[in-house]
Amino acid sequence: MTENHEHHYTEDVQHHLKQVEALLHRHELVATLVHKQEMPREERHELVETILHKRHLAELSDKLETLHPADIAYILEALPIEQRLIVWDLVKANRDGEILIEVSDAVRESLIATMSREELFEATEQLDTDEIADLAPDLPQAVMRDVFKSLPVEEREQLRAAMSYPEDCVGALMDFDMVTIREDVTLEVVSRYLRRFDELPDHTDQLFVVDREDRFKGVLPLNLLLVNEPELDVATLVKHETVTLHPDDQAEQAAQAFERYDLVSAPVVDEDGKLVGRVTVNAVVDFIREESETDLLNQAGLREEEDIFASVWKSAQNRWMWLALNLCTAFFASRVIGSFEDTIEKFVALATLMPIVAGIAGNSGNQTTTIIIRSLALGQITQASARHLLIKELAISGLNGLVWGSVAGLFAYALYHSIPLGLVMASAMLLNLLLGAIVGLVVPLAMQRFGRDPAIGSSVLLTAITDSGGFFIFLGLATIFLIH
Amino acid sequence: MTENHEHHYTEDVQHHLKQVEALLHRHELVATLVHKQEMPREERHELVETILHKRHLAELSDKLETLHPADIAYILEALPIEQRLIVWDLVKANRDGEILIEVSDAVRESLIATMSREELFEATEQLDTDEIADLAPDLPQAVMRDVFKSLPVEEREQLRAAMSYPEDCVGALMDFDMVTIREDVTLEVVSRYLRRFDELPDHTDQLFVVDREDRFKGVLPLNLLLVNEPELDVATLVKHETVTLHPDDQAEQAAQAFERYDLVSAPVVDEDGKLVGRVTVNAVVDFIREESETDLLNQAGLREEEDIFASVWKSAQNRWMWLALNLCTAFFASRVIGSFEDTIEKFVALATLMPIVAGIAGNSGNQTTTIIIRSLALGQITQASARHLLIKELAISGLNGLVWGSVAGLFAYALYHSIPLGLVMASAMLLNLLLGAIVGLVVPLAMQRFGRDPAIGSSVLLTAITDSGGFFIFLGLATIFLIH
Repeated sequence: MTENHEHHYTEDVQHHLKQVEALLHRHELVATLVHKQEMPREERHELVETILHKRHLAELSDKLETLHPADIAYILEALPIEQRLIVWDLVKANRDGEILIEVSDAVRESLIATMSREELFEATEQLDTDEIADLAPDLPQAVMRDVFKSLPVEEREQLRAAMSYPEDCVGALMDFDMVTIREDVTLEVVSRYLRRFDELPDHTDQLFVVDREDRFKGVLPLNLLLVNEPELDVATLVKHETVTLHPDDQAEQAAQAFERYDLVSAPVVDEDGKLVGRVTVNAVVDFIREESETDLLNQAGLREEEDIFASVWKSAQNRWMWLALNLCTAFFASRVIGSFEDTIEKFVALATLMPIVAGIAGNSGNQTTTIIIRSLALGQITQASARHLLIKELAISGLNGLVWGSVAGLFAYALYHSIPLGLVMASAMLLNLLLGAIVGLVVPLAMQRFGRDPAIGSSVLLTAITDSGGFFIFLGLATIFLIH
Repeated sequence: MTENHEHHYTEDVQHHLKQVEALLHRHELVATLVHKQEMPREERHELVETILHKRHLAELSDKLETLHPADIAYILEALPIEQRLIVWDLVKANRDGEILIEVSDAVRESLIATMSREELFEATEQLDTDEIADLAPDLPQAVMRDVFKSLPVEEREQLRAAMSYPEDCVGALMDFDMVTIREDVTLEVVSRYLRRFDELPDHTDQLFVVDREDRFKGVLPLNLLLVNEPELDVATLVKHETVTLHPDDQAEQAAQAFERYDLVSAPVVDEDGKLVGRVTVNAVVDFIREESETDLLNQAGLREEEDIFASVWKSAQNRWMWLALNLCTAFFASRVIGSFEDTIEKFVALATLMPIVAGIAGNSGNQTTTIIIRSLALGQITQASARHLLIKELAISGLNGLVWGSVAGLFAYALYHSIPLGLVMASAMLLNLLLGAIVGLVVPLAMQRFGRDPAIGSSVLLTAITDSGGFFIFLGLATIFLIH
C-alpha cells in the first residue's frame, strides 16, 4: 500500500465501535418503524425510508470514511452478521481489499461469501502481491485465475512464489517492497534516487545493497544515510554483518531474531545469495500475536479462531473434536474405576476421595508440561539439560506429594477415622504426582522428537494418564491394603 | 544504546548455544582431570591448570566476545547455574548492563546476586534511563541511591518518572531517545541538524515536531524527509493526525494500536500536550511476547516465569498456591460426592460414571471461557453482544449435551443394561454442559466488571463449579430416579 491515509488514528478504537453501534441502532429503529406501519400508508412509509433511513446510513457512511482500514476491520469483527453486512456494504469499494487483509480468517469468510467475482477481483487490485497471497486460500479459484491473468509477469512470479510457502515459513511473512541500491555510488546519488519516489515503502529503515545479478551484499541503514556526509561512498558504510533470512526458515525463528536484535526489517536471501524479498516488523508482530492466540485456543481444544457471531452449528463443529477426544479418555478412566467396583462397594468412601487424587496430579503435571513446552519453543532444552530437568521435576513433585499428600491423607482420616485409608490416600497422591511429573515431561519431549507440535495434544494425553493412573493407583492400593 | 555492535547476527542462536556448551564441557573435563590428580603432583597440576584450563576459558571468552548481548542472554538462560556463572564471569564488564536488560527476570536475579555494589553501579552506567528503570526493581536500594546521585538532573527526573509507572502502562514502555525539530525550518536545515549526530537513536522512523514549550505538534516521517526537495518547510509536511499515547494509557491498548496501524514509533504526550517520550515497536514486541507467556503460565497456575534451573524449593513455591487452591475445590467436590454415599453404596456403577459428567462439562465450559476472555481482551464485547453470546453458548452446549449426552447415555446403558441409568446419564450431561456454558460465560464477564483480570482464576472457579455441579446433578438425579 503506497497511498497515504489521512485517517483519524486513535488508541481507543472502542470509541468508534460504540458510535457505529449507535448509528446502526438508530438505523434499525427506523427500519422497524417502517416495517410496523407497512402497507396502509405507503407514501408515508417511503417518505420515512428515504429521509430518515438514508440519512442515518449516510451519517454512518461518513463516519466509516474517516476510519483507518484496520479500525473498520475491528468494528466488523465486533458486529453481529446482519449489522456487519450493512457496514460492509457502506464501505467504499476501493477499500475492500485493505480491509479484507485486516479482518480475522473467520470474519473474512463471512464477508467474501457476500461478494461477487468482479468485486473480489477489484478488491485484489488494491493489494500488493504478498497481500494477495495471504487472501488466496479464501478466494474462489475463478477469482485467482482472473488475478493471475491481470498481473504483469514479474508480479505473477512473486505471487506464485509467495503462495508456495507454508504458513509458518519466512516466505509467507515476506513482502517485495524493498528499495535496492548499488555499492559503487555516493550517498548523494542515493538521496537523489530516493527523491524520485513519491513515498518509500512502509518500514523502510534500511536500503538493500545488491550487485548487478541481484545478489545481496549488505544493508545501508537510513540512519547512516542521514548522519553522514553526501560525498561518502555506499561501499564505506554498507553493513555486511546483518540478519539475513531464508524463505524456508521457520517464521518463529525469524520472529525470535526480530525480538532479540530489535529489527524493523530484514532481507530474505535465497540459496544462490539473491535478494528475494524482505520481512518487516509489522508482519512479525501479527505473526507473534496470531501464534499466541492459537496457543491459547489450542489449549482449550478450539481448532481455529471463532467468529463470535458465527452460527451455532459452525461453532459447535469447531469444538467437537476436543470434546469427543476427552469423552474417549473419560470413558477409559471410567472403565478403570469399573474394574474396582467390588472394592468401592465394600468401602464407598473411596468413591468420594478418588477424584482428588486424579485432579491434583493433572494440575501439577500440567505445570510441568507448560514449562517444558515454553523451553522447547525457545530451543533452550539440550540433552544435558533434559536429564537435569527430569530430576528436578521429580524432586518438585516428590516434595509436593509429601506436602499435599499429607494434607489429603489427614483430610481422609478426619472424615473416615481410618488410619490405613489416610495412608493409602497420602501414598496414592505422592505416586500419582510423580507419574504426572514424568508424563508431563516426557510427553512434550517425545512429541517434539517425532516432529509434532508439543503444544497441541500434550494436555489431553497428560490428563488421560493422570486420571486413569490416579484411579488405578488409589483404588489398587486400597484393594491391597484396605480389603483382603 | 547509541554504540554500534559489529556482532555476528544469526537467526539460529541454538548453534551458538551448542558451541558454548562444548567449550564449557572441555573446560569441565580439564577441571575434573585436575581435581582427580590432586595434591601428589602439585606442579603438574598447576601446569595443566594454567595451560589447558585457561586456554579453554580464553577460547570461550573469545567466542562470547563476538556474540550479540541478546544472544549471550539467551545462552545464560539455557545453562545450569554453575555453568551460567562461569560464562557470566567471562563476559566483558562493559556489557553487563546490556545483558542484564535482556535476560528473563528469574535469571536476572541469579546473576545480580553474584555482583558487588560497584559492579552493579558500573553496569547501570552503560544504560539509558528507561533501561535502568526496567532493572530498578531487581537492584539493591544502595545501588539505586548511587545511580540517582550520579545522574545529571534531567536524566534523574526521567528515571524518577519512568520508575513511577506501573508495569502495564505506556509510561513503563516509554524511552526518551526522541529526535525533536521545529516546524519553521526547511528540510535542508533538518538534514544538517541530523548530520551532527553520530548515529540516530534506534527505531527513529519519524522526527517529533514540537514548539518552544516542548508541546507536541506532529511528526515528520523520515520517509518524507528523504523523498521531498530540501527547500520545503517542515510545516508543509508535518503530519498532525497521528497516534499519540498518554503515559497512563494501558500498555495493551498501545500494543493494539501498534498492531493495527503498523507503527514503528509513537509519541507519548502528557495532559499539558508536552512531548515526554516515545514508544518503539521493539518495546511493544517484548511486551506482547511477555503478555502471551504470562497468559500461558497463568493458565497452568504458574505465578511467574521460572528459571528452568532454579532450585527445587523455589520452583515448588511458584506452583504451590495453584495446587492448594485446586486441592480446596477438590475437597469440596469430594464432600458433594460424600453426601450421596448411600446412593453410591446401592448403585456402585454411579461411581464409575460420575467423573465423565464432571469432566466433559469442564472441558466445554473452558472453551466458552477462552473465547470470552479473548473477545474481552480485544474489547469486542458490548452489552448488546453479551446477550447474543449467552444465547449462542447455551445453544451450542445444548446441542453438545444432546449429542454427547446421548453417546454417554448409550455407553452407560451398554455397560449396565439399565435404561433409567442411561437416561440419568444423558440428562446429567446435558444439564451440566448448560451449567458449564453459563458459568464459562458469566465468570469472566463478572471478573472483568469487578476490575479483575479474567484470565487469572476463571478456570479454577469454572472447574470447581462444573465438578461439584456435575457430581451433584448426576448423583442427585440418580437418587431421585434410580433409588427410592
